[in-house]
Parts: sequence; structure tokens; C-alpha cells
Amino acid sequence: MGDGARYTLRALAQALGVPLEGDPDVVVSGVAPLESAGAEHISFLIDRRRATAARASRAGAFLVAVDAPPLPAPVLRAAAPRLALVRLLELFAAEEPAPTGTHPTAVVEAGAHVDPSASVGAYAVVEPKAVLGAGVRVGPFVYVGRGAEVGAETILHARVVVLDRVRIGRRVIVHAGAVLGADGFGYAPDAGRYRKIPQIGGVVIEDDVEIGANTTIDRSTVGDTVIGRGTKIDNLVQIAHNVHVGADSIIAAQSGVAGSSRLGRGVVLGGQVGVADHVTIADGVVVAAQAGVIGDLREAGTYLGTPARPVGETRRVWAVTVKLPELARRVRELERRLERFERGAGGATAEGGESPERG
Amino acid sequence: MGDGARYTLRALAQALGVPLEGDPDVVVSGVAPLESAGAEHISFLIDRRRATAARASRAGAFLVAVDAPPLPAPVLRAAAPRLALVRLLELFAAEEPAPTGTHPTAVVEAGAHVDPSASVGAYAVVEPKAVLGAGVRVGPFVYVGRGAEVGAETILHARVVVLDRVRIGRRVIVHAGAVLGADGFGYAPDAGRYRKIPQIGGVVIEDDVEIGANTTIDRSTVGDTVIGRGTKIDNLVQIAHNVHVGADSIIAAQSGVAGSSRLGRGVVLGGQVGVADHVTIADGVVVAAQAGVIGDLREAGTYLGTPARPVGETRRVWAVTVKLPELARRVRELERRLERFERGAGGATAEGGESPERG
Amino acid sequence: MGDGARYTLRALAQALGVPLEGDPDVVVSGVAPLESAGAEHISFLIDRRRATAARASRAGAFLVAVDAPPLPAPVLRAAAPRLALVRLLELFAAEEPAPTGTHPTAVVEAGAHVDPSASVGAYAVVEPKAVLGAGVRVGPFVYVGRGAEVGAETILHARVVVLDRVRIGRRVIVHAGAVLGADGFGYAPDAGRYRKIPQIGGVVIEDDVEIGANTTIDRSTVGDTVIGRGTKIDNLVQIAHNVHVGADSIIAAQSGVAGSSRLGRGVVLGGQVGVADHVTIADGVVVAAQAGVIGDLREAGTYLGTPARPVGETRRVWAVTVKLPELARRVRELERRLERFERGAGGATAEGGESPERG
Repeated sequence: MGDGARYTLRALAQALGVPLEGDPDVVVSGVAPLESAGAEHISFLIDRRRATAARASRAGAFLVAVDAPPLPAPVLRAAAPRLALVRLLELFAAEEPAPTGTHPTAVVEAGAHVDPSASVGAYAVVEPKAVLGAGVRVGPFVYVGRGAEVGAETILHARVVVLDRVRIGRRVIVHAGAVLGADGFGYAPDAGRYRKIPQIGGVVIEDDVEIGANTTIDRSTVGDTVIGRGTKIDNLVQIAHNVHVGADSIIAAQSGVAGSSRLGRGVVLGGQVGVADHVTIADGVVVAAQAGVIGDLREAGTYLGTPARPVGETRRVWAVTVKLPELARRVRELERRLERFERGAGGATAEGGESPERG
Repeated sequence: MGDGARYTLRALAQALGVPLEGDPDVVVSGVAPLESAGAEHISFLIDRRRATAARASRAGAFLVAVDAPPLPAPVLRAAAPRLALVRLLELFAAEEPAPTGTHPTAVVEAGAHVDPSASVGAYAVVEPKAVLGAGVRVGPFVYVGRGAEVGAETILHARVVVLDRVRIGRRVIVHAGAVLGADGFGYAPDAGRYRKIPQIGGVVIEDDVEIGANTTIDRSTVGDTVIGRGTKIDNLVQIAHNVHVGADSIIAAQSGVAGSSRLGRGVVLGGQVGVADHVTIADGVVVAAQAGVIGDLREAGTYLGTPARPVGETRRVWAVTVKLPELARRVRELERRLERFERGAGGATAEGGESPERG
Repeated sequence: MGDGARYTLRALAQALGVPLEGDPDVVVSGVAPLESAGAEHISFLIDRRRATAARASRAGAFLVAVDAPPLPAPVLRAAAPRLALVRLLELFAAEEPAPTGTHPTAVVEAGAHVDPSASVGAYAVVEPKAVLGAGVRVGPFVYVGRGAEVGAETILHARVVVLDRVRIGRRVIVHAGAVLGADGFGYAPDAGRYRKIPQIGGVVIEDDVEIGANTTIDRSTVGDTVIGRGTKIDNLVQIAHNVHVGADSIIAAQSGVAGSSRLGRGVVLGGQVGVADHVTIADGVVVAAQAGVIGDLREAGTYLGTPARPVGETRRVWAVTVKLPELARRVRELERRLERFERGAGGATAEGGESPERG
């Protein structure tokens, strides 16, 4: 948290543009979870399922939604509580260190273009013809390959690898350990062995994208792998070669998108989702965690399961699935009853009396 | 293996505190698998399913459980064979290099506190206000962020990233490439786009934890992401923001735990398990590989499948599931028989003669 | 793409050894996807499903299979179009930078053996007793541990970690961030806690293997974890300790193979596949994406689902599964009809009239 940041509730109400219910002179010095907050903290109640925890909290104040129940401390009541929380956390966030130029241990090769307002961390390597825009912040151990471009105000955290000719837009955040532009996974079978298909394309990361720690985004065979403007990608995600992800999408941790698939705008993939190759996913599709998308999803909506199907269908299937042993018993019982009945009814139904085929 | 380590079986029996059956003067110079061991190796038979391989092995000696069958070479017979194996392997393990102080290429910024008994590898970076305790071993290319704390005897292998204010306990082992303290994945929708929710919390790794290669553990939004004492985490695991993992738990490779979930003590997650957000898992729960936990698991026991359910229930469901095509045939057959029967029985059952509804 | 590479179609036809249909003097300066290609590009049509896109393409020329439909520009028609594509892309690939010796910032410790024709990148660290063969290319930030061996012509991309005593063959490619030789995940329960089982074995990567970005391959407990000759492994894959993967296999992204499993020759694992521990997979087995292999697969063929079963069986099960709600309705309907019928039939079937057991 911001070292020594302290605010009165009056100041916070003003900064957030929301009404305060309670003593405006109360001072808080941090934001804390409901369970661990003390009188010196402000906490928050946005998810109504946390109401009981909020009532039991010792926080000195709360940021809440307009329909929140009464709480035992002053409240800031926000019509858009998540956005208010963003602002609140920004107020308490640690100051970003000012760009400090190029660390003496950084290797900026001749022919690299580094804007004077950019900073380059310890032991970073910037290859020839790479371009770092205004205000770019390159962390320690970052590698920026030959001819790669990094747009203004973008942050590459420690140990990010940006390989040759990858193009990154403005205000992008790439977390530690991500690898952008490794070779796509392509081979041509040749007499029982595999020959590598050269991957001579690139990667384009548009503006305002965020990419998680140790995530990998491969360069395309030809053309570009593209991550659309504003899309947010979590940790340990795999984006294969030739994939296009539309703008304002969300890809949660450990999901993977196989080669040449196309995701529309505003797509959401939950955690550990798999998308097969050459699949098209329409704008606004939400795929629930662990689902497997093996064919096109052409309609907006939520999909679940492997193969991924509309959530209602999968839920209905799952509801029956858990009762399958009972269903099997009922079928056996029907067979017994019908057999007894057929036997009891005698010759009248003899033509229906053969035994059912059993596997 | 330890360069040149050689022991008589007499010495091994003493070191392990177990009885020897066979020639005490036999010398072994390494530990090897049953299949590749030669006369100069000791091998081991702990898993009884390997008994056939053990009988065929050319190993010069064996470490075995008390109930092991006769084998063609001397045996060390241990009541606790796994713990005896630990001791045996320790005897043959390579000597850990002695801490060597700070490598000349390491960057230890002013204001970092590095215990004189700690070692800092080549090209490691330790930021201001970071604290490295007694005997800490920091590998090459490791990044220790501003204000991070690393407890005594902890080992950070090559290229580990420990971001600002992350607190690591004592005797922790973090393997190469792990990232501790990257931002949690949180956004507030704002007019069709996503605004980043600042992640101003921390990460706490308690004593005796081990964390696998390229695993990611995110910092919390507020408060701390916590990994409890003695917990072991495998490679490529994702622990999201605000997660609490209890003590003495095991999380196998490629599992992921989504935001704010709580795992109890002694929990085991098999490989590729997914745990949804805001889920609580009780002490002693075992979740089998690839399962998906989408709701609380309140009772100790083993769970399987997606959604994860008690292992017996899921197994019963799976047993029926593989026979579903047959079950469907039997239902069709029942329908045919009943229809024929109804027709054959004539007017007596006319009220039951309507066609079944079909989807 | 190769800076400034330009070829006439005549030259390309000769280089690829395939016939040209069209003007041999047309010049192309790059390879591009069907959708974005212009008159200056050659594109390709290998997958017949792309025929419509090819007909609409503005490419200046096409590389096609022998049975391709007519296209609106000159075509190079190849009997083995994938191998011709490999050659075509090689022609346009960027020149690999010539090995440049050891970067002044690299740390090559005394006692390491680096072939004079090898290159070692900026801030790479090569420990004592490590051996780098002829023509080896070690990227920036690479770590090569004590006693590790890297065979001739092998490429270690930026930030690869090769830990102590790992042995890598010839012409191997390891992509950025991969970790070879971290400790296997093994613990012995000891009074409710876990004691680490030392992992004193090694890793062997045979010739012509390719390993993806941020993939992890653990060292074995004893003996070696082995990746067979020519095998290709994608990004974010986990190979646990003691695993043996046969030659010429393919392991797609985010798959995991648990401890001590054995994969044969020519095995293919789709994306996000999980293989349990101590499993044997026969030569030529193909496991479809997201499948879970929990027991031996002894016959070549394609397997699907969790637990993985022959693809035909799983598909038949899936086909019924999506209709389960309907099947349950039909069983209910059968029960109703039979009950009515039994009631209507009166005393004749009284012995069959008991109610079915319901769960």
C-alpha cells in the first residue's frame, strides 16, 4: 500500500464522488479485507454474499453498493461500486517509481531506438532496431528482440521476453515471465519424422492489453497472431500461432487457444478452457471454466462443458448424469416388470415376448 | 549424484537404522532405477507393483519394505521405506555448493538488507528494502523486489521473480521461473471496456513451502494471498489473488485455484485440477486429477470429476456412462415391446395407448 | 521475413522442385495468409477447407496441392505441399544471426567447456563443467548448470534454464523460459507433514527435439527423465520426473505427463491432455485434446475423453449423453405407461404390480 497514505472519509468521499454516511473526520490508512480490517482500514462490500462478513467486520469504514444493508461503521455508498473501488485502490496504491532512464547494467545495442523518457531496468537487453516509445518501462532481465516495437506508456515487467519483430501497442502491461513471439508449433510429417515449419510471421498486441505472468503467445507461421485492443489475459495462458483475439475480451488463467482460431469481441474464457484449432467464436460468447470448444460457437451466450454447449443444455445433461445409476436401475426394473407382465399375459402378446438385447 | 560417494551396505544399514540381509561388505556407488541398476547400484522396491521388475533387476542391493518378496541381492528392510529412501537419497545427493556471498555481477541496491551468510547469484537483482535472511541462497537472474522478505535458509532457484513486498518464510524452496506477487486478475467493467482494479495486497509464503518451476502466485487485491506452512506446489500451477491454502497441502502440476478460494489443511489437488473462485475446501479433502471444483467441498474425502463429487458417486456415474449407448438401445427396445404389447392387448388398455412424447 | 528477400516464381518453382502454372517472371517478396496477401505475396492453399478464401485472395501467387481448384493467380502445384511450404518459408525466413562468440557480459565460469564455434548471449551464465558443443547458440539470460551438456548445433533461446547435469543432444531447440531439470515433485509423508525426497537423477533430451516456451521437464528421482529423438513439445507442458517419452512424438500445449509414465514412439497428445502417473502408452497412440489418460493404452489408435477411451466409443457415449434429458423423459413415460397398463390389465398381472424402486 502507499507508504503512509492517509485520508479522511471526507476526502475519500470527494475523491470518489459518492455520498458519505457517518463521521467525515474519521481517518483511514489502508484498504483491507472484511475479515482482517481494523479501525484504521476501509473495507468494501460489493458482493452481497459477503454481507454477513461485513456486519462482523471491524473496519473503520466501508465502501458499499447503494443497496447495502446497515453496517457498523461509516459507509461510502456508490452507485457504481466497482469503479469506485478502482479509484479507492488507486489512492492507496504504491507510487509507481518514476522512470529512471537506462540502468547502467542494461544492454541497449547500437541501432535500438529508446525514447529518452523510457526506463530500462537492470540487465535488460534491447536488440538492434528495437523501438521503445515514450514513457515505456522495461523491467529487469527483460529481452526486447531485434526490430520489436513497444508503444508509449507500456510496462514490461521483470523477465518478459519480446522476440524479434513483435509489435506491442500503447499502455500495455505484460507481467513477469511472459513470452511473446516464440515459434508457433508447426511440423510437416516427413517419412515418419517431423520437419519444422518455419514460423516467419509476427505477433501484434494492440493498445491497453494486459498479459499475465508466464503466459505464452506464439508468433504466426505467416501474418500475425493478434490480441485485440483492451483484452486482458491471465497467467499461464497459451495463445497459439495465427490466433486472433478480438477487442475487450477476457481470458482466464491456464486457458489455451489452438492455432488459427478466431475469438470475437467481448469474448470471455473462464479458467482452463481449451479452444481447438481453426474454431471461430462469436462476439460476446462466454465459455465457462474447463470447457472444451471443439467447433464454432456462432451465437453470443454462455457455453459449458466438453464439448462446449449452451449452458442450459449442459446443465440439464449434468442434472441427469448424476442420476445415471438410478436411471439404469429404473430401466432394469422396467425390463423385469415388462417381462413378468408379458409372461403373465400369455399368448396374447407372444409376438412381443423375445428377450431384449443386452450388451 | 554425489561425486564419488561410495558406501558399504553395513554403513548404509547403520545410516538408515534398518537391518541388512546379505553381505555387509558389498559397496555401492549410486542409487538407480530397478531397470537400469547394475551391481554398483542400490535400487529400491517400495511399490509392490514393481516386484516383478525388482526380481529381474541386476542391482547390487535393494532398499525394501518389510513385506517385500525375496530378491536376488542383499536387502535393507525398512519399516518406513519411504523415509528410509529419503535418507538414502540424501546420502547420495550432490553436495550443495557452500554459500559464496554475493556474486560480483549481482545488483544489490542500496537499502537492501542481505545477511552476511546469504549468497546472491550471478546477475541477481535485489531491490531497496528487500531483506534476505541467514543462509538464504538466491540463484542467478533472481529478482527480489522492493520491500520483499526472504526468511532464513530459503532457496530461490535461477530466475525466480519475487515482487514487491512479498513475504517468504524459512526453509522455503522456489524453483526456477516461478513468479510470486504478480498482479491478481481483476477488472471493473466500464462502458464495455475493462478498467484495471489495482492489486495492492501481498503474498505470504509460510515456512517449509516448496513451489514448482514456472508456477505463478498472484498478489491479492487487498490483504494477502497465503500459502500455508509445509505446503508443496508443483510446476505450472496458478494460485490467484486472495487465495488461502492451508498447511501441509499438496497441489500437483498445472492445477489452478481461482480468486478468493480457501483450501484447508492437508488438502491434496491432483494434476490439472481447477478450483473455481470463492470456493471453500475442507481440511483433508483430496481432489483427483483434472477434476473441476465449482462449489464448496465441506467433508474430508476424495472427490472426482467435473463438477467434483465424492469419488464413489462419480465412479458409479462413469460406470453407467460408458454403457449409455446400450442403455439407450434398451430404452428403445422397451418402447417397442410395450407398444406391441399395448396394441396386442387391445381395448383393455386403450387409456394407456397414447404415443410417448419424444424429444 | 527475410529482409529484402525477393524471388521470381521461376526461381521458387526451381527451388521447390514443383511445376509452375502462370507467369514465371512474377516477383514476390513475402509469404502471407490468404486474407491479407497482396500482389507482392505468395500465399498457400493446403487445407481444402480454405478453398473459398483462396479464390477470394489477392495474393500474387499460390503454393497449392495437386488437387487444388483453379485460383486467380499463378500456382506452384506440389505433390507434397506441406514439405514444399517448409522450403518456401525457409526461403523467406530471416537470416539467423551468425554465431558471434561469447558476449562480453556472459559469465562463463572456469572449468566450463565452450566450443569455439558456439555463441553465448548477453548475461548468460555457464557453470563449471558444463559443455557446449560446436555451433551451439545460447541466448541471453540462459542458465546452463554445473555439468550440463549441450550437443552440437542446439539452440537455447532467451532465458532457458538447464539445471545441473541435464544432457541435451544435437540440433535441439529449446524456446524461451523452458526449465529443464528442476526437482521432481516427490515427498514422503512423515507424521502429517511431508519430507522432500531428494531428486538426484537427471534429464536426457535426445537429438532433434524441440521444447516450447515456459515448458517444464523435471529431473528424475534416480535415473533419467528422457525425451526421445525427434519429439516435439509445445508451450507450457509439464513432464514429471522419471517419465520416458519415445521418439518422434508430439505433445501439444498445456499437456501434462505425471511421474514415471512411459510414452511410446510416435505418440501424439493434443492440447491440455493429462496422463496419470505410472501409465504406459503404446507406440502410435493419439490422445485427443483435454483427454485424461488414467490407465495403460495398449493399442495404437485415437483416444478421447476422461477417462480416455477409443474415440469411437467416446463419441457414441457423447452422442447419447447430449440426449440424456430426453432419455430420462422416455423412461418416466415408459414407467407411466406400464403402470397404467398394469392397472388396466387387472389381476392377471398382479404379481408384477409392485412399485418400482426409485432413488
